[in-house]
Amino acid sequence: MSGCIEPVKFEDGVLFVLNQLKLPGVIEYNARGTIEKVFGAIKDMELRGAPLIGISAAYGMYIGIKDIAVGSDAEFMDAMKKNGAYLSQARPTAVNLFWAIDKMIAKAKSLSGKTVAEKKAELLAEAIRIHEEDKENNRRIGENMLAVLKSPVRLLTHCNAGVLATSEYGTATSAMYLAKEKGWDLKVYVDETRPYLQGARLTALELNQAGIDVVLICDNMAGYLMSQGKIDAVITGADRVASNGDTANKIGTMSLAILANYYKVPFYIAAPTSTVDLNIASGSEIPIEERAAEELTVCGGKKIAPDGIGVYNPAFDVTDHELITAIVTEKSLVLPPFDENLRKAVLS
Amino acid sequence: MSGCIEPVKFEDGVLFVLNQLKLPGVIEYNARGTIEKVFGAIKDMELRGAPLIGISAAYGMYIGIKDIAVGSDAEFMDAMKKNGAYLSQARPTAVNLFWAIDKMIAKAKSLSGKTVAEKKAELLAEAIRIHEEDKENNRRIGENMLAVLKSPVRLLTHCNAGVLATSEYGTATSAMYLAKEKGWDLKVYVDETRPYLQGARLTALELNQAGIDVVLICDNMAGYLMSQGKIDAVITGADRVASNGDTANKIGTMSLAILANYYKVPFYIAAPTSTVDLNIASGSEIPIEERAAEELTVCGGKKIAPDGIGVYNPAFDVTDHELITAIVTEKSLVLPPFDENLRKAVLS
Repeated sequence: MSGCIEPVKFEDGVLFVLNQLKLPGVIEYNARGTIEKVFGAIKDMELRGAPLIGISAAYGMYIGIKDIAVGSDAEFMDAMKKNGAYLSQARPTAVNLFWAIDKMIAKAKSLSGKTVAEKKAELLAEAIRIHEEDKENNRRIGENMLAVLKSPVRLLTHCNAGVLATSEYGTATSAMYLAKEKGWDLKVYVDETRPYLQGARLTALELNQAGIDVVLICDNMAGYLMSQGKIDAVITGADRVASNGDTANKIGTMSLAILANYYKVPFYIAAPTSTVDLNIASGSEIPIEERAAEELTVCGGKKIAPDGIGVYNPAFDVTDHELITAIVTEKSLVLPPFDENLRKAVLS
Repeated sequence: MSGCIEPVKFEDGVLFVLNQLKLPGVIEYNARGTIEKVFGAIKDMELRGAPLIGISAAYGMYIGIKDIAVGSDAEFMDAMKKNGAYLSQARPTAVNLFWAIDKMIAKAKSLSGKTVAEKKAELLAEAIRIHEEDKENNRRIGENMLAVLKSPVRLLTHCNAGVLATSEYGTATSAMYLAKEKGWDLKVYVDETRPYLQGARLTALELNQAGIDVVLICDNMAGYLMSQGKIDAVITGADRVASNGDTANKIGTMSLAILANYYKVPFYIAAPTSTVDLNIASGSEIPIEERAAEELTVCGGKKIAPDGIGVYNPAFDVTDHELITAIVTEKSLVLPPFDENLRKAVLS
């Protein structure tokens, strides 16, 4: 429908995984028909993005039991738990991975007394439901975002909060795919997003595949574009939103928000309510991960910086809620004061 | 003295050119002992940076006549003019190239009546004077900059307005080398400066060679560093300064200035008065060069973006004078109002 590229496809008991390690050069699906192969795809980062890891783990949990012989409730649950413990080691810091595994195990528990065949069918249905719910949430985020935009529109995004991190539509990209479906006059500027280049490698690819007019820029060009009046709105995803609206996202996001504020360009965060953490009061409570120096000093397999220098590589930053025009969730477009309105949206 | 790397060295009639095309991996000097070889070094960009091109052209003009036999004033001037016309084709848009060639030709004219040996000696002295004047201007820029800083100091710079674009000390880097000489507690954060990576490849290299504590970051991390209180001042160079203080410099400079302004970090432009163009009223009169898409889509020889997408690659931007704390020249540290004070400094 949306024309989006599919990061995973489930067919006849096999998870076909788009190998993101080979993007943007090669578009290749690997067949992952055993739980070990799903484990490998997650661990080796053939797929990435918290929601997509969760979706894939749910299918992996089904794949893990789809061939087991007839047995007791206890034997079936033992297999589920063993598979869950195994799969959760694939990316030990991925919260969505544990969430999806727990959801599949809880589902299995609720099926005691049913036949193994019935259990298999219901667990497959549960995995598909997790996948479909993600798509549906994404579509709603896009609709809520689109309600405050109009054609023609020139958007800017950073990193990849797209289909390749989630499922159909993505989050930050959802309004872009919906605008394309509606035939809007649309142009999307994509920050390349150093050092890991998720914008250049992933976002530019997936939007281009859907026939959207994509223009790649370097991160340091975004402010200049705004100064030229070339950007109507900035939309990014979020890794974590505090209850006051402070938002942790890929490094560079907070600078974009400051630039947007300076040039009076609306700045939107597009994220499901599951990203909002009501247990933390502000962004100062969010730890910032630092990553390896080689992400900066090596590019395209070649050393681009001298030996012996220091490198600082924070992976995320926190955007002050005062710089955010709205936080767009699947439930509603949440406006300030975020302290009050985010809580309402999450708990609604 | 300064411990700076030398981008060119002149010894025994030969210009030794540090081949910047091989940086940061290989530090290699090529001997350029004929005018044709100096032409090649400029044309092929073994050396770059407007002041350094001028310095090298001056030596090239000397090299072009150093072996000519005895002859008349007219014959000598013919050779100078022929060499000048030839060398000016090496980089046809480099203003400093023409300036240095004209200066050497004017010098030769002033020498009519002298012997060829005297002419050669005086022209060599003129080339050395052009080189020494650049060093002296750079040192003064650094001293004027240092007067408003104090140890310990954490500086941020963008692109390469260093020794490798000029001569000893550089411009934006001058205060850094001087602070190092004085034993200050100094750390310099260097933006990698996408797409051409002058910060990573050149500035990080030259500061590191001089024993300065260098930390490389991605361009999109600068705002986060400022938010953490890690930057005491930002210093960049300038390609062109309008009479109202608006400053054209490498893409990303204006965004840094906006971020510095937001976080109340002083933002300095370090540039010789020759960079100030009193004939243009504001930055809106400065054309912005757009460069090839491949600078973004290929890194380290490898394609990092998908085929078929659009790319926008402006090479420069213009920083509004209201965001600039001071413009630091060899004559003085120029404070606002720039309209009035820049004119005074340039004409003093």
